[in-house]
Amino acid sequence: MVEGEPDDAVTVDSTASAPRIELVSIGDELLLGETVDTNAAWLSRSLAARGMRVVRRTTVGDDASDIRAAVSGALERTGAVLCTGGLGPTRDDLTRPVVAELFGRALSVDADILEALCARFAALGREMAASNRTQAEVPEGAIVLPNAHGTAPGLVLVRDDDAFAVLLPGVPREMRSIYEEALEPWLLRRWTTRAGPISHRIIRTTGIAESELADRLEPVFAAVTDLGVAFLPSTVGVDLRLTSWGALSENQATAAFDRVEAEVRRLVGQWVYGSGADDLIDAVAARLRRRGWSIAVAESCTGGLIAKRLTDRAGSSDFMLGGVIAYANEAKTRLLGVDATLLAEHGAVSEPVASAMARGAAERFGAQCAVAVTGIAGPGGGTPQKPVGTVCIGARAADVERVRTLRMPGDREDVRERSAQAALALLWKLIGEEDR
Amino acid sequence: MVEGEPDDAVTVDSTASAPRIELVSIGDELLLGETVDTNAAWLSRSLAARGMRVVRRTTVGDDASDIRAAVSGALERTGAVLCTGGLGPTRDDLTRPVVAELFGRALSVDADILEALCARFAALGREMAASNRTQAEVPEGAIVLPNAHGTAPGLVLVRDDDAFAVLLPGVPREMRSIYEEALEPWLLRRWTTRAGPISHRIIRTTGIAESELADRLEPVFAAVTDLGVAFLPSTVGVDLRLTSWGALSENQATAAFDRVEAEVRRLVGQWVYGSGADDLIDAVAARLRRRGWSIAVAESCTGGLIAKRLTDRAGSSDFMLGGVIAYANEAKTRLLGVDATLLAEHGAVSEPVASAMARGAAERFGAQCAVAVTGIAGPGGGTPQKPVGTVCIGARAADVERVRTLRMPGDREDVRERSAQAALALLWKLIGEEDR
Repeated sequence: MVEGEPDDAVTVDSTASAPRIELVSIGDELLLGETVDTNAAWLSRSLAARGMRVVRRTTVGDDASDIRAAVSGALERTGAVLCTGGLGPTRDDLTRPVVAELFGRALSVDADILEALCARFAALGREMAASNRTQAEVPEGAIVLPNAHGTAPGLVLVRDDDAFAVLLPGVPREMRSIYEEALEPWLLRRWTTRAGPISHRIIRTTGIAESELADRLEPVFAAVTDLGVAFLPSTVGVDLRLTSWGALSENQATAAFDRVEAEVRRLVGQWVYGSGADDLIDAVAARLRRRGWSIAVAESCTGGLIAKRLTDRAGSSDFMLGGVIAYANEAKTRLLGVDATLLAEHGAVSEPVASAMARGAAERFGAQCAVAVTGIAGPGGGTPQKPVGTVCIGARAADVERVRTLRMPGDREDVRERSAQAALALLWKLIGEEDR
Repeated sequence: MVEGEPDDAVTVDSTASAPRIELVSIGDELLLGETVDTNAAWLSRSLAARGMRVVRRTTVGDDASDIRAAVSGALERTGAVLCTGGLGPTRDDLTRPVVAELFGRALSVDADILEALCARFAALGREMAASNRTQAEVPEGAIVLPNAHGTAPGLVLVRDDDAFAVLLPGVPREMRSIYEEALEPWLLRRWTTRAGPISHRIIRTTGIAESELADRLEPVFAAVTDLGVAFLPSTVGVDLRLTSWGALSENQATAAFDRVEAEVRRLVGQWVYGSGADDLIDAVAARLRRRGWSIAVAESCTGGLIAKRLTDRAGSSDFMLGGVIAYANEAKTRLLGVDATLLAEHGAVSEPVASAMARGAAERFGAQCAVAVTGIAGPGGGTPQKPVGTVCIGARAADVERVRTLRMPGDREDVRERSAQAALALLWKLIGEEDR
């Protein structure tokens, strides 16, 4: 199989009816490029997954007039703005007073928040600095969104004309938990009241190009008139997003999603690894746990990336035993027992070597399952027969084995990411086969 | 050693005299959160490193009126705007015509660019689609910045009042190479002509908290009056940025930087791993190459992260032999030869085990050097004696060994990132010791 370049264009469904929202990220560290603004991408994705549409993002530093201009511009354009950052206790943290002033609201200390702050510091055995008191200040009439992981709660201010601004802390863990636990339900309730319920489903695929997926699913989607449909491609796969805005009740939407998902699975089920927010790693983990199997990895060109992904999540020690990064040929022989004659005859990047690496990892770690990758990530090392991007992957589950040779497009990082994903997808399919 | 939480506040030097610039990122995929806007962070960092100051970033979708509003707003505010994205060949790609119209410039096909485009497609053995012709269109009077890695060149438009807009492709590799090869020199020449030369130096540290670094360097920086000084903290270390805007000639600035760097190294040299754009990985690689030594890794809680970092760069096979991810205790024994009684007596997260893991990796791979990490990344697994964040690291170089126990703050991802950095820093110091 040769994977095609992913299509350049992103297919976006008609979003005329989707609620529009703007994000404002606040902090000098963002403008200095020290911090990549993962909050903005995470919020954009989370909102899009719920059918809400981010139409503009603005990033400004810790400067009162810049914050004021960014927030008021967003309020005028869309009447809906989510701010992250600038809620800390230092004099750099200006979001709260600036937005309160913009809404014409006085700030006063909220006794409940202050008490929770004091308790938090007491539990840490530390004295609370006077500056932390400002984190208990709430603009008049604001809705407080509790922060289970930090000191600054989220705040929502709604204007008489129904325009609103939400203030969230910039620390990703705190921002995410406030969004998930309090803000998303608030936003959905708000828009549901106005337009009817918003529902959505994400169906996740890997191993198939966006254009081929679109061709195969054409008959399904041509018949879908009551849902918005979008293809969301990334380096490691293509997600399908189904959205219902207002026209259907929640039950009707669920029935419509079920009907479309069944059709999608009938036509391209071999590439569908999940629906919902799951990563392929979660899908692999679920199948391993269901069977009570453990896993070991053998990596050459991916250099630890698959092992890193398998151990990103807490609890991975339930199934992950470990792995060997056999970057040098001698390591493949010594640590994975790959026969030196195999390496000499077929070269390190070959299906027999990928197969032997997977077998070696399974045996040495005593694991039921294994994945192996050997390839040419580039930019050097390519030949006419095996150009850069040539990758052999192997998967093994309870003595059944699959091996594939792929040609991955992109630069070194892309080749490594795609190879890791393809190897995990191969294993995921293999463990899922019913006739095991 | 217990590492402190990094300071909340970012220390920024007085940038009143620094050139101000805005970034506009264009693309639906950014607003959908499918793509994290690493371009914006990369450009911010690159510009900041050269003493230019990004004061606002705006992200809009592939929509003509949104692009127009974002670019014209930025032009009015700062007169200097860098756009990325929207230069592709499809009808979604609107940046070129929208900005040309905003500057009142007609678009016409540039014969040289068209020829280069045709040659590019011919070399790939593909026919050029008619839509690609638009990529050869240049606004009247624009400066063309060649693109060595793709089809769309960069473009610079300068208005009569000296305000300017730069258009760069959104593909990171293409954007970066155009920036480095053509745009940065253009920007520096431009501002140098107006304000005198901008020079800068970055001094990189790891293993010391920002507040301690600031305290120790206080006497140096109190005496520096002709340079801007900034502390740039991140999860893996603190960079110091020295900048000279206009007041000094390039030779004077270099002399001033040398003088300050010598003082910094005298006071905190043990934490300084480089000056310039180098990552710690590059510093480790340089020392390994200088000695002709190879390396192997043994990872538990970092789960492949160190190996991944060591193999991120092309050419790492010069020194990287491989590694063992020994997530399960049995793997530590079987694959790294860690004595089971050591594990039983001291626990997996202990200095004797870290030491045995490093020795095992060096022996099994036949490497002169090794690093090992074993720790509790969390959120589960902590105990009162060994809470989450407890990490033992070991480094080994030609039979000399160092082992340390650290307490890392932050969540699972932070603990893993910091542990990988600390282990590499320990090895880097060990290889650098003169009396080896």
